[in-house]
Amino acid sequence: MTTPVSHSARSEGTGLEERTINLLVEREMRRWVGDGENLMGVACLDALFPSGKLLRPRLCVWSAAAAGATVDEVLAFAAALECMHVATLMHDDVVDQAPVRRGRASSAEHFGISVALMAGDGLASTAYLAMLGGTETGLPADLVVRATRVVADAVRHTVAAIAEETLLREDLSCALPAVLEIVRGKTAALTSAACQAGAILADAPAAHEAAMRTYGEELGMAFQIRDDLLPFTTATPGTTNSGAFSDVANRQPTVPVLLARDAADPGDLEMLQRLFCEEMDAATAHGRLTEVLTRSGALDRATELARAHATKAYEALAPLAPSAARDRLAELTTTVVDRAW
Amino acid sequence: MTTPVSHSARSEGTGLEERTINLLVEREMRRWVGDGENLMGVACLDALFPSGKLLRPRLCVWSAAAAGATVDEVLAFAAALECMHVATLMHDDVVDQAPVRRGRASSAEHFGISVALMAGDGLASTAYLAMLGGTETGLPADLVVRATRVVADAVRHTVAAIAEETLLREDLSCALPAVLEIVRGKTAALTSAACQAGAILADAPAAHEAAMRTYGEELGMAFQIRDDLLPFTTATPGTTNSGAFSDVANRQPTVPVLLARDAADPGDLEMLQRLFCEEMDAATAHGRLTEVLTRSGALDRATELARAHATKAYEALAPLAPSAARDRLAELTTTVVDRAW
Repeated sequence: MTTPVSHSARSEGTGLEERTINLLVEREMRRWVGDGENLMGVACLDALFPSGKLLRPRLCVWSAAAAGATVDEVLAFAAALECMHVATLMHDDVVDQAPVRRGRASSAEHFGISVALMAGDGLASTAYLAMLGGTETGLPADLVVRATRVVADAVRHTVAAIAEETLLREDLSCALPAVLEIVRGKTAALTSAACQAGAILADAPAAHEAAMRTYGEELGMAFQIRDDLLPFTTATPGTTNSGAFSDVANRQPTVPVLLARDAADPGDLEMLQRLFCEEMDAATAHGRLTEVLTRSGALDRATELARAHATKAYEALAPLAPSAARDRLAELTTTVVDRAW
Repeated sequence: MTTPVSHSARSEGTGLEERTINLLVEREMRRWVGDGENLMGVACLDALFPSGKLLRPRLCVWSAAAAGATVDEVLAFAAALECMHVATLMHDDVVDQAPVRRGRASSAEHFGISVALMAGDGLASTAYLAMLGGTETGLPADLVVRATRVVADAVRHTVAAIAEETLLREDLSCALPAVLEIVRGKTAALTSAACQAGAILADAPAAHEAAMRTYGEELGMAFQIRDDLLPFTTATPGTTNSGAFSDVANRQPTVPVLLARDAADPGDLEMLQRLFCEEMDAATAHGRLTEVLTRSGALDRATELARAHATKAYEALAPLAPSAARDRLAELTTTVVDRAW
């Protein structure tokens, strides 16, 4: 972690520390998902725990807290966002035939496609139950409806992007904006919804809500572009979220790959094309791709692009009054690019 | 159709005729799903149209109307129920590897698993947007939240049952109650939710809501038991909803098959066991299964079981005041068993 100590200290005792929120969110997820009463429930628990970064729940909590809500008020909604995110990952791993997720066998690999599919559906249903359960803890029903609609709309964008992405597979000639739109749908839609929903549940003014929406979208763009870079910049790619070589194995044109295509010399361009059409050992392909991405300057350029989105996210926070929650959101705009997680 | 003319005449001019509601629901589904702006949207439209029986939307509309609501008030919610139902069918066809749905290629077969999966997810998201959109047409937000939670809970039961069903595949020794529980989850949960949600949206008294919930559940049981019988009782099984031979091909123990197992003579029992473990041409297997089911009396017994559930559904209507909508719900308890659709 590169978070400066001074920042972490600043939110001490506010109940907004990352570690505190993560623990609360985990407990809340267990409350809604249950203890594995049937095959679907077992598969849901297996996909949720040990949990991932829990970025979306924290975005929701901090966005709500920055508008004056308490953690308790939005905790069920925040937990629901992680359930929804994991539900889409479970289905995405079926689409990508990804054997690995978070360093271990994906649900599709471990339980088979049928159970992974149904468990993803069940987890999404649970997410809606948790979101709509907010009325039980005293949230006004009209705010709950508005926030839940924002999330449902985001999920529609997410799955549409995953479907579109399958059309681009093996297509090294596709346009960078098309891939950026897929990043926007696959990742930024839900991070944006997490922030906007937090603002809505806190009954924030329209300007605050719009700011949080923009913040979440730009942060999501930065996050995903950085995520696509991680397998090429960390010493042990196997420890990153997705399977280390999955994008290469799927011949999925990512932002760094397209930036390399546009900057590579003829020799490297030929290598890229070979990587996208020839059968090759995954580790070898990954090694060669890393070389091309580094030599062409694509890794640096993609990092710059991620940083530009993170800067926009930071700027979107301008209308917000100072608070510990705002500080955490501001911090994220740095760590999201510099992270190795 | 065996609906007596006198009954149909009774709802003429009330706006509650099956054909009128179906047309309104179809228009409303198009409004929410859009005109196929991307691959996911195209796959959703393809799965929705030409539409099926639209049973769940009508259940919702009639249940709401029986408590004094207008068709317009619940139309978006009713359309959402069909979207949700079709979304689960799209995923169920991936699980069952079913090549045929409603007499033509299933989404999984036509678009491939990845797109069918994402389109199902997108259609479910659209369903939530439509359900929660009820506040736009003046429905109180707290009623919309309650009704939507009922549906989300039902979907969780539906997909849990589909997952459990995969465990029973090829298991001719499984208990009848276990299979009936799967029928309850796969079909009765959503028909029950459709009726209960209609009552909630009409702000019906608790007794009316409970009655509609029971009615929908019992009707769903009758409907599904009858559905599992259809391939063996209609002259042209290829025209029924599912692939004609899908249960045989998947070696799925259905209610009629288990009733045959418990009543068959030793020769027929051996035949059943062979059908469940030997490779056999689907049409041949279907023909032999039909013989065993008929000879053992299982078809008659399953029909009786369906009729018993339909009778319970009819009895559940007792607390309702007389109305054209109540008449339609009562009619369904007859047609659901006698139908060839």
